[in-house]
Amino acid sequence: MLSDIDQEMKKHDLNAILVSGESTFGNPELYYVIGAGLARGGIYLKVRLHDPILVVSNIDVGSAKKGRIKNIETYSEYEHEKTLQRYGRNRAQVILYDKVLREHKAKGRIGFYGKVEVSSSLALVESLRRKGHKIVGEKRPTLVDVLRETKDRAEVDRIREVGSRTEKVVERALEVLRNSSVQGTDVLYQGEPLTVGKIKRHIRRFIAEENLVDIEGTIFAAGTGSADPHYRGAESDPIREGEPIVFDIFPQEPGGYCFDTTRTYVVGKPSKEIKSMHETVLEAQLTALDNLREGANAKTVTELVCSIFEKKGYKTQRDVTRGDEEARTHGFIHSLGHGIGLTIGERPNLSVLVDENLKEGHVTSVEPGLYKPGLGGVRIEDIVVIRKNGVENLSKLDKTLEL
Amino acid sequence: MLSDIDQEMKKHDLNAILVSGESTFGNPELYYVIGAGLARGGIYLKVRLHDPILVVSNIDVGSAKKGRIKNIETYSEYEHEKTLQRYGRNRAQVILYDKVLREHKAKGRIGFYGKVEVSSSLALVESLRRKGHKIVGEKRPTLVDVLRETKDRAEVDRIREVGSRTEKVVERALEVLRNSSVQGTDVLYQGEPLTVGKIKRHIRRFIAEENLVDIEGTIFAAGTGSADPHYRGAESDPIREGEPIVFDIFPQEPGGYCFDTTRTYVVGKPSKEIKSMHETVLEAQLTALDNLREGANAKTVTELVCSIFEKKGYKTQRDVTRGDEEARTHGFIHSLGHGIGLTIGERPNLSVLVDENLKEGHVTSVEPGLYKPGLGGVRIEDIVVIRKNGVENLSKLDKTLEL
Repeated sequence: MLSDIDQEMKKHDLNAILVSGESTFGNPELYYVIGAGLARGGIYLKVRLHDPILVVSNIDVGSAKKGRIKNIETYSEYEHEKTLQRYGRNRAQVILYDKVLREHKAKGRIGFYGKVEVSSSLALVESLRRKGHKIVGEKRPTLVDVLRETKDRAEVDRIREVGSRTEKVVERALEVLRNSSVQGTDVLYQGEPLTVGKIKRHIRRFIAEENLVDIEGTIFAAGTGSADPHYRGAESDPIREGEPIVFDIFPQEPGGYCFDTTRTYVVGKPSKEIKSMHETVLEAQLTALDNLREGANAKTVTELVCSIFEKKGYKTQRDVTRGDEEARTHGFIHSLGHGIGLTIGERPNLSVLVDENLKEGHVTSVEPGLYKPGLGGVRIEDIVVIRKNGVENLSKLDKTLEL
Repeated sequence: MLSDIDQEMKKHDLNAILVSGESTFGNPELYYVIGAGLARGGIYLKVRLHDPILVVSNIDVGSAKKGRIKNIETYSEYEHEKTLQRYGRNRAQVILYDKVLREHKAKGRIGFYGKVEVSSSLALVESLRRKGHKIVGEKRPTLVDVLRETKDRAEVDRIREVGSRTEKVVERALEVLRNSSVQGTDVLYQGEPLTVGKIKRHIRRFIAEENLVDIEGTIFAAGTGSADPHYRGAESDPIREGEPIVFDIFPQEPGGYCFDTTRTYVVGKPSKEIKSMHETVLEAQLTALDNLREGANAKTVTELVCSIFEKKGYKTQRDVTRGDEEARTHGFIHSLGHGIGLTIGERPNLSVLVDENLKEGHVTSVEPGLYKPGLGGVRIEDIVVIRKNGVENLSKLDKTLEL
């Protein structure tokens, strides 16, 4: 977490770090260190054992003051407008960074972060190196990866809050399904066949009413399409009696923290096979939840889940590494979980490929699933915080298959 | 535009380009070359005068096929899972890129793009260079900047379509204001005082119902707060009779193109000063619109706008460069416009600092504004396409101040 920054800078052998970008939107690394949204972005500089500083455009000073950095400077204080006029954007940028680094006596190895356009960043870094600054790149996990992967109390509170609003959205969508009637294999809502497009319009409205943002779109995969875990559901897809619906929703606070939850539902009576897949996925998830805690190994827990599936005759990720091509599309075909925070894909990763131990404060999805082309899929996903003796489960939704 | 890619690669002295990232979401450079959303991202490689190829995760092949790249390969074809298991993530990534570059005979200078975490990208580039690949960074505008800045017909159509949906949202919000009643200086809606929070809840719902995403939040700055052009409006801010409301909305298609429009409104009767500011801003905007066309100079057009403001006694950006500190907060305190497309901040830029000529196919905002601390602000923003003999204005909303 962010309060470990000095200690982690030492471990990463960094005397200073720069985090920058032209906006905090779409730049979680910059948002993370600043703690506020800046339309024009800025330059964050921290020298080890000193307070960080933030350099922003005049127009963003008000927004910057809402964040965590006390020492706010402006581009104007570095006469950036004048150098811009004289030298143009590229050279003026190098001059600005050089002045900021010198002003704050940033020497030694300097880490360089931000989610930004990489080509021009390479050019900037090379220019700064020519001016004598020891800018270094880091393999993953980088310093910022490591800080971000464990969440402090305020971060967990925000994720929990987004979670509770996300679950309200799910419950309101379930109301629509529950108020539908079944006629043959058709599901009718307000007298008309219910499609994925119609229910997604409701879901988008519910998300907006909770003041959440649906950045990557919701997965509402009904019927055989649900056999592809990334299939989002097409507008015209019908909702049919007895078929599985994988409902995976991952909204974000405006510019901030995310949640991510999946449930699988059936309107009417599920087939025996889907029911059995659901029972197995739930058993696998509960086992994973029981075994996750500080120090647990991501690979070991995932293999435990694989064993449960394999015992019931399903293929898993392990069969892929054994060369079984069918295991790419049948069975448990994705990893067990991924970290969430300012993004829905960050450390830690729970997978048979990741031989790493979990840390207290990790926030991760736990989402086993089973998929069968031609039939459909089943996935159940909770978000948990890793604690000393187990998990704190932030997901409260019921896991019943039948509506 | 993208069809110029071979020609522009030659101009930029690049024999190949790589564009990559872990997702297309939040990575407009990758989305642009692929033309589809990929949850796990991928590696795009184009050797000059050859068709591009795209390497993706098995799970994303279906999504990749919806894009523009015909030659789709998977990580598995490069035995990425095996190297991952054997060497871990960092080394496996270097091996994968190295194999992809060799397989497709990418030699000579190779451009490297994508909006990604820069620290680990620096490490990756250094490893690839050690393997003999001539990966180069570019100053701005990079190859991808140059391609993206002029929009082809399909892109303009998508921006126009987002624009028409955005304007429906504005019109629905205006319905709320028009259906309000004035009591003293209070504005009442359905019998209760109307706040920014209440109207923003409506706006979020209208945006969702148009299947748009409100990624960066809407500016609805009412009263004196509108004097800060980036002030978004707080939940509890009241809407008051006679005070200016700067309504600036910039939603996005899910993962795709954006629009951006601003109007300034007053419920009831505006003060003489706000009315006069509005007339001046409108005159400035119409003059800018009349003078924009292929070949017009961004600096010259912005200076024309400054002259209009200065003649009426307002300060402008030019006063800042003359050392007038008050001009940072009073008058025309931002630039005239910015390009839009997959983002709401890209080339071209219309500013007194940008001595560049406009090109046919540029899509840019034209948004003069005037601000007076303690009173409020006025801004009017249209989105236009630069054409040979003038502009195609994609903004159709009326510009009347009084509702």
